[in-house]
Amino acid sequence: MNIRSLALLSPALLLAGCSGGKQTKPNIVFFLVDDYGWPESSVPYGDEVYPRNLEFHTPNMERLARQGVVMTHAYACPVSTPTRTSILSGMNAVHSGITNWVSMAKDEPADAVGGLNGNGVFQDLASDAFIRPDWKINGMCPDIPESEGVNDVTIATPLARLLKDEGYYTIHVGKAHWASAGVPGASPYNMGFTVNVAGTNAGHPRSYLGEENYGNTKDKWTMAAVQNMTEYYGTETFLTEALTREALKTLDYPISHKQPFYLYMAHYATHTPIQKDPRFYDAYADMGLDDGQAKFSSMVEGVDKSLGDLLDYLEEKGIADNTVIIFMADNGGNADNPAKGGVPHECCAPLREGKGSCYQGGIRVPMIFYWPGKTAPGTRVNTPTLPEDLFPTILDIAGVKERETVQQVDGKSLVDLFVKGSQLAAKEQFSSLSEAGAFVVPEEVSGISPERPLVFHYPHQWKVEYRPEVDFLSTVIVGDWKLVYVMMNTLPGMHVQDGVPFELYNIREDIGEKHNLAAEYPEKVRELASVLGERLREWNAPMPTVRSTGKRVAWPDEI
Amino acid sequence: MNIRSLALLSPALLLAGCSGGKQTKPNIVFFLVDDYGWPESSVPYGDEVYPRNLEFHTPNMERLARQGVVMTHAYACPVSTPTRTSILSGMNAVHSGITNWVSMAKDEPADAVGGLNGNGVFQDLASDAFIRPDWKINGMCPDIPESEGVNDVTIATPLARLLKDEGYYTIHVGKAHWASAGVPGASPYNMGFTVNVAGTNAGHPRSYLGEENYGNTKDKWTMAAVQNMTEYYGTETFLTEALTREALKTLDYPISHKQPFYLYMAHYATHTPIQKDPRFYDAYADMGLDDGQAKFSSMVEGVDKSLGDLLDYLEEKGIADNTVIIFMADNGGNADNPAKGGVPHECCAPLREGKGSCYQGGIRVPMIFYWPGKTAPGTRVNTPTLPEDLFPTILDIAGVKERETVQQVDGKSLVDLFVKGSQLAAKEQFSSLSEAGAFVVPEEVSGISPERPLVFHYPHQWKVEYRPEVDFLSTVIVGDWKLVYVMMNTLPGMHVQDGVPFELYNIREDIGEKHNLAAEYPEKVRELASVLGERLREWNAPMPTVRSTGKRVAWPDEI
Repeated sequence: MNIRSLALLSPALLLAGCSGGKQTKPNIVFFLVDDYGWPESSVPYGDEVYPRNLEFHTPNMERLARQGVVMTHAYACPVSTPTRTSILSGMNAVHSGITNWVSMAKDEPADAVGGLNGNGVFQDLASDAFIRPDWKINGMCPDIPESEGVNDVTIATPLARLLKDEGYYTIHVGKAHWASAGVPGASPYNMGFTVNVAGTNAGHPRSYLGEENYGNTKDKWTMAAVQNMTEYYGTETFLTEALTREALKTLDYPISHKQPFYLYMAHYATHTPIQKDPRFYDAYADMGLDDGQAKFSSMVEGVDKSLGDLLDYLEEKGIADNTVIIFMADNGGNADNPAKGGVPHECCAPLREGKGSCYQGGIRVPMIFYWPGKTAPGTRVNTPTLPEDLFPTILDIAGVKERETVQQVDGKSLVDLFVKGSQLAAKEQFSSLSEAGAFVVPEEVSGISPERPLVFHYPHQWKVEYRPEVDFLSTVIVGDWKLVYVMMNTLPGMHVQDGVPFELYNIREDIGEKHNLAAEYPEKVRELASVLGERLREWNAPMPTVRSTGKRVAWPDEI
Repeated sequence: MNIRSLALLSPALLLAGCSGGKQTKPNIVFFLVDDYGWPESSVPYGDEVYPRNLEFHTPNMERLARQGVVMTHAYACPVSTPTRTSILSGMNAVHSGITNWVSMAKDEPADAVGGLNGNGVFQDLASDAFIRPDWKINGMCPDIPESEGVNDVTIATPLARLLKDEGYYTIHVGKAHWASAGVPGASPYNMGFTVNVAGTNAGHPRSYLGEENYGNTKDKWTMAAVQNMTEYYGTETFLTEALTREALKTLDYPISHKQPFYLYMAHYATHTPIQKDPRFYDAYADMGLDDGQAKFSSMVEGVDKSLGDLLDYLEEKGIADNTVIIFMADNGGNADNPAKGGVPHECCAPLREGKGSCYQGGIRVPMIFYWPGKTAPGTRVNTPTLPEDLFPTILDIAGVKERETVQQVDGKSLVDLFVKGSQLAAKEQFSSLSEAGAFVVPEEVSGISPERPLVFHYPHQWKVEYRPEVDFLSTVIVGDWKLVYVMMNTLPGMHVQDGVPFELYNIREDIGEKHNLAAEYPEKVRELASVLGERLREWNAPMPTVRSTGKRVAWPDEI
């Protein structure tokens, strides 16, 4: 691995905070929510208000939506680490080889099939069928000498360091989960962050409860016990609240020094464990939601309050006008989680399935963007976005003109899409919640083709029990068309899901992916299979091995 | 509690980092070692090289001693938290009421006698005799609204915040241990630090070994498991090394932004557990030291390497010339620790006893001060210093002219003592290791009387088993004279230690406190008992209650 030294500092950093006491670069807040589904908000991201939207009260997300632009077709990877490393590196997850979440422990692939994992190998349909693919099981590491020679990681120049070199004060609060314990990527301090609160190798908190020390008790402890929170031990402070308070503290320095900051506020919520946030629970129980639903909604409202507290704080400090807010989720809502209550697998309805899945519930996520004075307020833009776009987007916002990275960046800057797109949407006066609101910004304006292929790839088994709706799927979306590649059905005698290797959906007309049109449009299937196959090969996609033949699962265009 | 708001920021901070790209204020590194005795170094702090000095190889401490001024009579409190809170607040520990170390858990006094503690009440001589004093068992909290109404804490305006307000970039690395879990004082972020690595409520690390995840394993976990270290889990990185690397990372921001920094580098070493630092162990074992001694010496050399790495880094970055170094220990060496090997209770020889005790081994500690271009190199100054002096000293170095604090500051700035004192010492050309080297700076020069009374007070039982050399002692030192008040001997029929309530030593002539001169100099005893009694009353000193009478133990001048 050739790691180039970036010893020369940008001259910008010497000026960034010091131009006659005046700060010019905008502050950037990336507010990332965990396992948080597209309809799990009182902000509707669809063309109508769905029943699920009514189970949430998120006034601060609504407030942000009124101020900024709602992205109705934001996409993320089906699980956490791939999205997070894509944001950090600008690489598509297939390209980086980080297609699954990383275990807290090193060298223990999180895959539940076909190889090592913490619980051994399971005997089920998928285990009989597949050997786990060769992917970067230890996650992402930064391009520092300490990362050289570390096994099974992808090395990249991290976003936060480029921002730091540009003069940004870079703050990490919450969940990192880029890499396993024992490798440099586990620490935000290696990833270019100047301050870190609670960011570790963990992908979820052991507990959200101060009363349980966030998992830091003798009987409860795991590596997911949350760090840097001792002052709240034994108190009734829900983790989301504690992290928010810590985040506001960290802002004190850059604000008082008039230095631009990048706050990566990555809440652990609303990941499991599903626990009651008592400040908000009762209202949901009173609505008639079951206990699990009420708990989950209370966790969401806790996140909403955090957003509101942050927006209030920025206003109070007089810097809201110069602060960009990016609100997003890292993957779809967790639909395979009885603790959430409600109807199993329906938490992302009208979208099909949820976290882990390449169906829309797993990858279509909430997103709001707000650049005061630039984006048009209260607008909606429907051009699809990808997680890897955030890397060039944020650098673009920060005014980073030239950058040197060891990785090849796949994402594209969304700034024109957000800014010019929202302005155009405002000018065209589309109503916000009708089919007419499905406003796609022309490529000439945004630089982003509404038809660029969106590839998501999950060649893994998520949980102990094989689930065909989730495991060993790939997908490509081009405009309204979506192809789902069901790897299991490439094997003789297998007929899971619709029983065929390819499913084709028109996701504009069939948002729930209920009507497989593959038989009707074989040409479209071939076309998309070719696009998908080409991309997967180009990026050297991790693919399972067929146990019976010892060969890689076929590329989609080999079928 | 009246907490004044300090909303107005010093104008200095707006200029500190930005005066035409030139940084003027000196950086300050406070390098604090834990449980580290006066002779546990190859730097001799006494007037001769003692056998114990020969059991250590600390070339970087020697290097710092050659560059700066060795303080031969630096004092600290007998245990950790009181010294650390004194540094943070400028208050004498008696005055703050924090006379013992704080438990990791809230509301559980660390006292091993006469009250609650984690292990219940013990039945022994002291338990029969005393009920534990009313002291600030939860430690120190900052003057922020969150601290109001918190039980059993002392509230103070913390040093690091005053430095931050002055434009300093304030960094905490290592052990905090100012307050118990569940109160604001447990977090360095509340104490004015901008960055925190590993600082919590814990007073020691669960493990120094990366192989043991620093205690973060299911079977080993306690609240003393070290935080913010996940990247080193499973590696062979000794904690001292890991903390040093983290510290250097945190310096990147202030250095590249030309902002003055305050680095509080508070190593967990050399506190228990005594563990082998394999990089240095063999050389000591080869010298013939027993396993415990060799382990301990290896831990000390690990600290020495850390100091060297830091000094190297400052030189490499071209800022060594503008960086003040304060090297110190938080209390004496742990003499009651079989794991350290050697002869029990002799680790601080020629000093008597060690940590916990008011005899010299517990309170006399290593200290080196270096202000490039100001202090005279290779000098030694013998005027006694107190931990609470560090607060005004550091503010003085930072050029803080006016300060507003909720606490009354007891310490005095040592800057003239260090700077003018060392210059005078250099001019007078005292040799460094002879009686002539015992150079006391005149008060006219330093502003510090060599005869000011030094009060240490430990009205507690340190460990499960009562030890009269340690528990329930008070002391005052005035010049060469030292009075030790043995509270146990105020009770009828008690005759511990020398069998009398007062011991008097001439610590210049009798550094080992072997010859009790109380009977010989009753006037001196009365005089010092009066000084001690007055101070204890003035500061409302915590005192044990006599169980049989229900009355407070007598003030020394009531005897």
